[in-house]
Amino acid sequence: MNIKITIAYDGTRFSGWQIQPGRDTVQGALLCAIQKITGQKVDVLASGRTDAGTHALAQVANFHVTSAPTPASFRRALNGALPRDVRIRRLEIVDEDFHARRDALRKSYRYQIYTGPVVSPFEYRYYYHFTYDLEMAPMIEAARALLGEHDFTSFAAAATTAKSAVRTLYRSEVRKVGYRLFYQVEGNGFLQHMVRNIVGTLLEVGTGKRKPYSMANLLKARDRRMAGPTAPSQGLFLVRVKY
Amino acid sequence: MNIKITIAYDGTRFSGWQIQPGRDTVQGALLCAIQKITGQKVDVLASGRTDAGTHALAQVANFHVTSAPTPASFRRALNGALPRDVRIRRLEIVDEDFHARRDALRKSYRYQIYTGPVVSPFEYRYYYHFTYDLEMAPMIEAARALLGEHDFTSFAAAATTAKSAVRTLYRSEVRKVGYRLFYQVEGNGFLQHMVRNIVGTLLEVGTGKRKPYSMANLLKARDRRMAGPTAPSQGLFLVRVKY
Repeated sequence: MNIKITIAYDGTRFSGWQIQPGRDTVQGALLCAIQKITGQKVDVLASGRTDAGTHALAQVANFHVTSAPTPASFRRALNGALPRDVRIRRLEIVDEDFHARRDALRKSYRYQIYTGPVVSPFEYRYYYHFTYDLEMAPMIEAARALLGEHDFTSFAAAATTAKSAVRTLYRSEVRKVGYRLFYQVEGNGFLQHMVRNIVGTLLEVGTGKRKPYSMANLLKARDRRMAGPTAPSQGLFLVRVKY
Repeated sequence: MNIKITIAYDGTRFSGWQIQPGRDTVQGALLCAIQKITGQKVDVLASGRTDAGTHALAQVANFHVTSAPTPASFRRALNGALPRDVRIRRLEIVDEDFHARRDALRKSYRYQIYTGPVVSPFEYRYYYHFTYDLEMAPMIEAARALLGEHDFTSFAAAATTAKSAVRTLYRSEVRKVGYRLFYQVEGNGFLQHMVRNIVGTLLEVGTGKRKPYSMANLLKARDRRMAGPTAPSQGLFLVRVKY
């Protein structure tokens, strides 16, 4: 049986998705819970890894088991065995060939920035606190310049191992609600650190350090050193994976 | 100088407001930050203590110092010295005779319950997860029966030391938004555990274990053993203190 799960997690105390010896990871927590409930050692495959500290509203993963309780009671049992900062929102039995990473068509991320003087004690884990003045119009323009198909090498982690850095963005929007600034992006795939590097660059545009029309050249340069710094992981949420 | 501060805190990791040796408390964190910034050992007095695990959106406290930076930079410096789960939202210089506890006229609390199957990993610290079916109409009626001036002995912690248990409630409302149930209460004062004991009793009304018209007799009984259990502290927020 091939089981598809939709998972929410607070990434604050995790060293990211991928299992690592001696560290708390989301994949590790899931493997442990599944083994506890089914007695089976499985491999849990996500749509993609998330960085240490990054959150997910609806990460998707799948795993194979030889037998399992009904979906409703399996989900309940797994949530009972999982730490409370990882929750299985949906659990379904799917076709044997469903593959959470290969079959993902689109992914959406949201990056959250708090620009006010005092971050709420209930929200500091989920916002990057950035108090310099930000000009919205140039940020909106710069974000829009990333729409469509581009080689995103300039925004990829220097150590990235992806064969091709060509990705398509269907949405790339900055909006501000009071002191809260959100960057929302949807694409057919993302390179390592790509969203955080885009945000770091957009913040340089917002503070006037960089011009919005320079984004086209930045993409053409295909040079990580030309883009802005990597924004911290705590503001990043994996929002949705479409299949 | 008499300094009035309005404080928000996430009570999750604190053993309540009041300073205790060897424990993390909100008062202890504040004393420590004030001493670090001003070099002065002060006494920080709140409008009232909150229990271990209880949160505050706007607790009010005051303290006296012989000298201090301007309010804006004092607040900034204190927030820099405080852990991120305690934030000073406002800091003002007030009349020498202002007293955060004695001068409080009204206090508002909110209690949060999540009734759905899966609590979000971003919210579990702030909701009591209660999954039994709840009937709203009787709960609303029972909450309303507490409005006005009553002796609340039945809802006070057994060990309470208050001289009089007579308090007046100006608001006592239950409402449900999707899976979220909120109890909102405003009064001229509250006995220890009073809100949590009211909520524990209202939940018994909601599950049919207790009738809403029994609330009048429960108040008359002045007997803690007649009321419901104490609802867990994690769902409770001190919302506002009026002066």
